[in-house]
Amino acid sequence: MTEIIRPTLVIDKEQCLKNIERMATKAKEHNLKFRPHFKTHQSAVIGDWFRIYNVTAITVSSVMMAEYFASHGWDDITIAFPVNILEINNINRLTANIKLNILVENREAANVLAEKIKNNLGVFIKIDTGSNRTGISSSKTGTIDSIIKILNKNPKIRFRGFLAHSGHTYSAISTNEIFSRHFDALLKLATLKNRFKQDFPDIEVSLGDTPSCTICTNFSGVDEIRPGNFIFYDMMQFQLGVCDLNEIAIRVLSPVVAKHQSRNEIVIYGGAIHLSKEFLTNSAGKRYYGRIVKNINGKKTLLSDRNYVASLSQEHGILKVSQKNFQQFSIGDLVEIVPVHSCLTANLFRKYYTTDGMEISMINT
Amino acid sequence: MTEIIRPTLVIDKEQCLKNIERMATKAKEHNLKFRPHFKTHQSAVIGDWFRIYNVTAITVSSVMMAEYFASHGWDDITIAFPVNILEINNINRLTANIKLNILVENREAANVLAEKIKNNLGVFIKIDTGSNRTGISSSKTGTIDSIIKILNKNPKIRFRGFLAHSGHTYSAISTNEIFSRHFDALLKLATLKNRFKQDFPDIEVSLGDTPSCTICTNFSGVDEIRPGNFIFYDMMQFQLGVCDLNEIAIRVLSPVVAKHQSRNEIVIYGGAIHLSKEFLTNSAGKRYYGRIVKNINGKKTLLSDRNYVASLSQEHGILKVSQKNFQQFSIGDLVEIVPVHSCLTANLFRKYYTTDGMEISMINT
Repeated sequence: MTEIIRPTLVIDKEQCLKNIERMATKAKEHNLKFRPHFKTHQSAVIGDWFRIYNVTAITVSSVMMAEYFASHGWDDITIAFPVNILEINNINRLTANIKLNILVENREAANVLAEKIKNNLGVFIKIDTGSNRTGISSSKTGTIDSIIKILNKNPKIRFRGFLAHSGHTYSAISTNEIFSRHFDALLKLATLKNRFKQDFPDIEVSLGDTPSCTICTNFSGVDEIRPGNFIFYDMMQFQLGVCDLNEIAIRVLSPVVAKHQSRNEIVIYGGAIHLSKEFLTNSAGKRYYGRIVKNINGKKTLLSDRNYVASLSQEHGILKVSQKNFQQFSIGDLVEIVPVHSCLTANLFRKYYTTDGMEISMINT
Repeated sequence: MTEIIRPTLVIDKEQCLKNIERMATKAKEHNLKFRPHFKTHQSAVIGDWFRIYNVTAITVSSVMMAEYFASHGWDDITIAFPVNILEINNINRLTANIKLNILVENREAANVLAEKIKNNLGVFIKIDTGSNRTGISSSKTGTIDSIIKILNKNPKIRFRGFLAHSGHTYSAISTNEIFSRHFDALLKLATLKNRFKQDFPDIEVSLGDTPSCTICTNFSGVDEIRPGNFIFYDMMQFQLGVCDLNEIAIRVLSPVVAKHQSRNEIVIYGGAIHLSKEFLTNSAGKRYYGRIVKNINGKKTLLSDRNYVASLSQEHGILKVSQKNFQQFSIGDLVEIVPVHSCLTANLFRKYYTTDGMEISMINT
């Protein structure tokens, strides 16, 4: 801790390993393939931690990330993003060396794949289970039929099944809502699977989001899960009721540079280029970009939600703290912040330090 | 354009040069020192474009950025951020080689400087002109006196004057409000300058924010301006009425990967890790993360504000477009997006391409 002089992203490796182990064990118990999403950490070193728990297949969110992890020995990768046809040459290069799956959700992209794919490629059809971001509604079986027909024109392409991301679990306001959205996704996907399994006996259903994979216990009809955020968790998962404070394995440490008692504000070196402008709303209806952990009587304690990162400019962060806590912060202290969304924060820092001081690089660093 | 296959940050060099020239000319006409803020572009190559207009002194927002630009030949740098006392050794190393100015706004930091600074260092006292982010209220002359007294203990430290950033011009709702906030800042700083100029005949006032430096014409009592964003401008400045579309020199190009006609949505490869989650609100009260430019009859045209980047996840962006425009977007097209806040977007991309295809690196790339 004494060597940190600038905003620094710190992860607790032991807790990361516990988080991985718990999810790997859960997948095994439910007879699910575990294909963790590596977009959260984007690091080959952290990727290796998953091998300890026998992970051999991974998910990424871009062709670039697939190239990076392929170059670090991962040879079974799903790019869980609607295929970008401008990257078709990169996809052909990747499939020369690894087992690759991609997503399709429209005829235009399917036509380009049918025409241009040169090596074995798995294709999942992206299903929208209700988050309304991407994918085909599960009721549109005509569209699905026509896409499969197009894909079948190219013998190198194998239709693998249906992939969904119940992203709307992130906007749930209670764990009950996560359960009900997850259950709804299960029903939709099971219906689809039943419809197609006669023609495609090996058809698979792949589902993945940290909230449902963490707290739900029914995965009926699902073959594979792809959670990613769970390795670190963050304030979003905590506020959803998905994880406890001690399961959050990530912090931003930021130096205090100024204090303004008249408005109970602490200024830190740590801004939008460190934490990201992703925000949540606290119980008083105020936006926040992170919350604060303090050592109180030797125990790491999350300060009440009246203590929070209230605003961010490029390099500055403004903490609002309660009057009683104000004197606990001194110029030159390092404040321990739990970020709102660990994926975006990690992407901004581009490197990690472990609590025991090891530096860990990411893609492009 | 044909080689772009992924989200790409493109700048128009000719427009950047025009934007620099205009600000440099304005500074000269108003007899102001021009010390542009380099946090916006963070690039040594782009920094060199300023030398064409005789810029020799710059502003940065961190010690790290000062180190980067010092290593690229800049020897007169102001770090416009409340000094982080944990970086005192880095500051001492920098001052061995360049003319450096830093900011102070409290006695604690002043004491550390008085004790530890080893080489010549300029210190500005940060004044809060109303944005309530950092700085000392201009009425607290007692605090200012006591800080100057502390600084004077160290003969290597020279008190240079007062520095302010009227950041509240960014939240103005009209150009009139920018004028009035700027004028208020001028009054506060002039009062301070008058009070201190007997004891410090060379005292300077440094002011800087792109809105007021672009549109205001009264800089009475100001010695130096430090705008940064103006080299690119962005939707925030456009919405404030500070710049025209043709003055915005920055775009994000993003491939279209899916279309959802039932909700008039276009899915692009381009998310929070490209555009940043900084948002504005359009005339219908909707949050947006960027707006869309189209070539219409050979002319670059900003689509109406019913066409916008409506949401972002890590890699996905969702455009809402009007029904009439929906068919103008095809899978595999590159969409031209004007980002909300060019500083944060540039920081995420970490490299630029010029419209004529030159790649430009930034700090840490």
